[in-house]
Amino acid sequence: MSDLRRIVLDVLQPHDPSLIELTRRVTETERVEAASASLIELDTEVRNVKITVEGEDLDYGAIEDVINDLGGTVHSIDQVACGTYVVEDKRTLQDR
Amino acid sequence: MSDLRRIVLDVLQPHDPSLIELTRRVTETERVEAASASLIELDTEVRNVKITVEGEDLDYGAIEDVINDLGGTVHSIDQVACGTYVVEDKRTLQDR
Amino acid sequence: MSDLRRIVLDVLQPHDPSLIELTRRVTETERVEAASASLIELDTEVRNVKITVEGEDLDYGAIEDVINDLGGTVHSIDQVACGTYVVEDKRTLQDR
Amino acid sequence: MSDLRRIVLDVLQPHDPSLIELTRRVTETERVEAASASLIELDTEVRNVKITVEGEDLDYGAIEDVINDLGGTVHSIDQVACGTYVVEDKRTLQDR
Amino acid sequence: MSDLRRIVLDVLQPHDPSLIELTRRVTETERVEAASASLIELDTEVRNVKITVEGEDLDYGAIEDVINDLGGTVHSIDQVACGTYVVEDKRTLQDR
Amino acid sequence: MSDLRRIVLDVLQPHDPSLIELTRRVTETERVEAASASLIELDTEVRNVKITVEGEDLDYGAIEDVINDLGGTVHSIDQVACGTYVVEDKRTLQDR
Amino acid sequence: MSDLRRIVLDVLQPHDPSLIELTRRVTETERVEAASASLIELDTEVRNVKITVEGEDLDYGAIEDVINDLGGTVHSIDQVACGTYVVEDKRTLQDR
Repeated sequence: MSDLRRIVLDVLQPHDPSLIELTRRVTETERVEAASASLIELDTEVRNVKITVEGEDLDYGAIEDVINDLGGTVHSIDQVACGTYVVEDKRTLQDR
Repeated sequence: MSDLRRIVLDVLQPHDPSLIELTRRVTETERVEAASASLIELDTEVRNVKITVEGEDLDYGAIEDVINDLGGTVHSIDQVACGTYVVEDKRTLQDR
Repeated sequence: MSDLRRIVLDVLQPHDPSLIELTRRVTETERVEAASASLIELDTEVRNVKITVEGEDLDYGAIEDVINDLGGTVHSIDQVACGTYVVEDKRTLQDR
Repeated sequence: MSDLRRIVLDVLQPHDPSLIELTRRVTETERVEAASASLIELDTEVRNVKITVEGEDLDYGAIEDVINDLGGTVHSIDQVACGTYVVEDKRTLQDR
Repeated sequence: MSDLRRIVLDVLQPHDPSLIELTRRVTETERVEAASASLIELDTEVRNVKITVEGEDLDYGAIEDVINDLGGTVHSIDQVACGTYVVEDKRTLQDR
Repeated sequence: MSDLRRIVLDVLQPHDPSLIELTRRVTETERVEAASASLIELDTEVRNVKITVEGEDLDYGAIEDVINDLGGTVHSIDQVACGTYVVEDKRTLQDR
Repeated sequence: MSDLRRIVLDVLQPHDPSLIELTRRVTETERVEAASASLIELDTEVRNVKITVEGEDLDYGAIEDVINDLGGTVHSIDQVACGTYVVEDKRTLQDR
């Protein structure tokens, strides 16, 4: 089973709608169980946020559509977890 | 279920009322189960505080109203968690 | 329920009475279940301490009175937790 | 029993396919139970990612084939765990 | 109940008796359940140690007497915990 | 019982065989239950790795033989644990 | 009960016997349940190691004899724990 279970996104988003509305809308996407958003930086025009989405068999296209519909753009996909459980990314001696 | 379960706010607040009164009043808002406030910085006129609010299906408008009624302003929404549980924001290799 | 459950205080206190006596007296205040005090800095005249007080429905006025009666002053209230449980203050990307 | 149970890879990969597709395909490899991928660095042509794969008796050749088939290359194998359970790599006084 | 449950002391002590003997003697004091001592610094004449003592309703006077009897002096009381349980001192945004 | 239960080795090894083969072969040594290897540094000729081996009553000579047979050398033994359980090495005030 | 339950030693030891032999011999001392040794520094003539010994009612004299018999010397006793359980040394605001 190669279901997408967790995804962490770096997102640029205008100030309107609010971070609450964005998170709520992402959470309403099919098969999403929970999502959290953390503010990275606040600029005059946009905010840069980190969004973590969890669920079973997530549909990334649908999640990205919701973000785009609200005027946001996914700058990068920072973490992805697939399979029968979530493998946590542990520090190795190669991580700085 | 896309209920708002946790919210972290960066708030500027005058010295009166006290941080205890502010936190108590936020906690009295409908559907709030618990809240904590931590002092970030103390200036002559205002204090800058970080408020964490938890509950089921939180009403952000009502929470902001309480803060405004007590003379405070929400400077930024730093974290939001929605869904059937709270997704903790874990460090990734992109976090500094 | 908006009961005050935990409070962290930054206190300036003369060398007499001892930190043990101060902590014991704070703990004897009504509805306090436990308290701890940690030395921050030791000066010739005073000591600067961090006091953490836990209980159900704490009476801050009574706690401050005890500290004042022993010659101490509350320099700042650094953390407050209210509600049906204690919300721990977790690090966000906005904390330095 | 000397089964390969966990492997951490440092991988260079073109932007297409996405990190989601790469992780999903690695997870579909025989005997893989779960995999996660974390973005290390994003360049114009390629992305550098850290992939953690877990399972029982993993087939490294098959995993590397999948990565190569998608245009990626394994830059280094950063961690390997074999045996009846996964031995976590704990910090010693010799680690910097 | 305002019983003293834990105390952390910064102690200066001559090289004789050993740190083992000092810790053992502190542990033998009435109502002490356990104690540990950690070396902070080793000088030609004295050693500087941090002693943590736990028990129910500790008698600080008796503990200090034991330390003095062995030639040591309490330089400062660094932490005190009283009440029905030990409140751990958690980091706040005001701690450096 | 003074059985050797865990050993951490700093090893220099040629690029061939792979880190997977090295770890697998160490794990196949008698009485080894599990082993992990982490890359410390990658040079043109050799790789420097940290190997953690666990089992009951480990035979260090046999483990070193396997490493030597594969062209590797043990640069140093960084940690050793013997007895009825593994004592974890905890930080003291003397560790930097 | 003031039994010695854990002791951490800073030891200088010649290269022969090995760290494994030293740890094994310390573990064979009466009433020792388990011991671990971590390499701090490796010099041409000696190695500097940190040894953690656990047991009930440890006999320090016997442990030191074993170390001396093998050509080693105890440079300092870095931590001692006595009593009915091991009190962990927790960070206070006075620790650097």
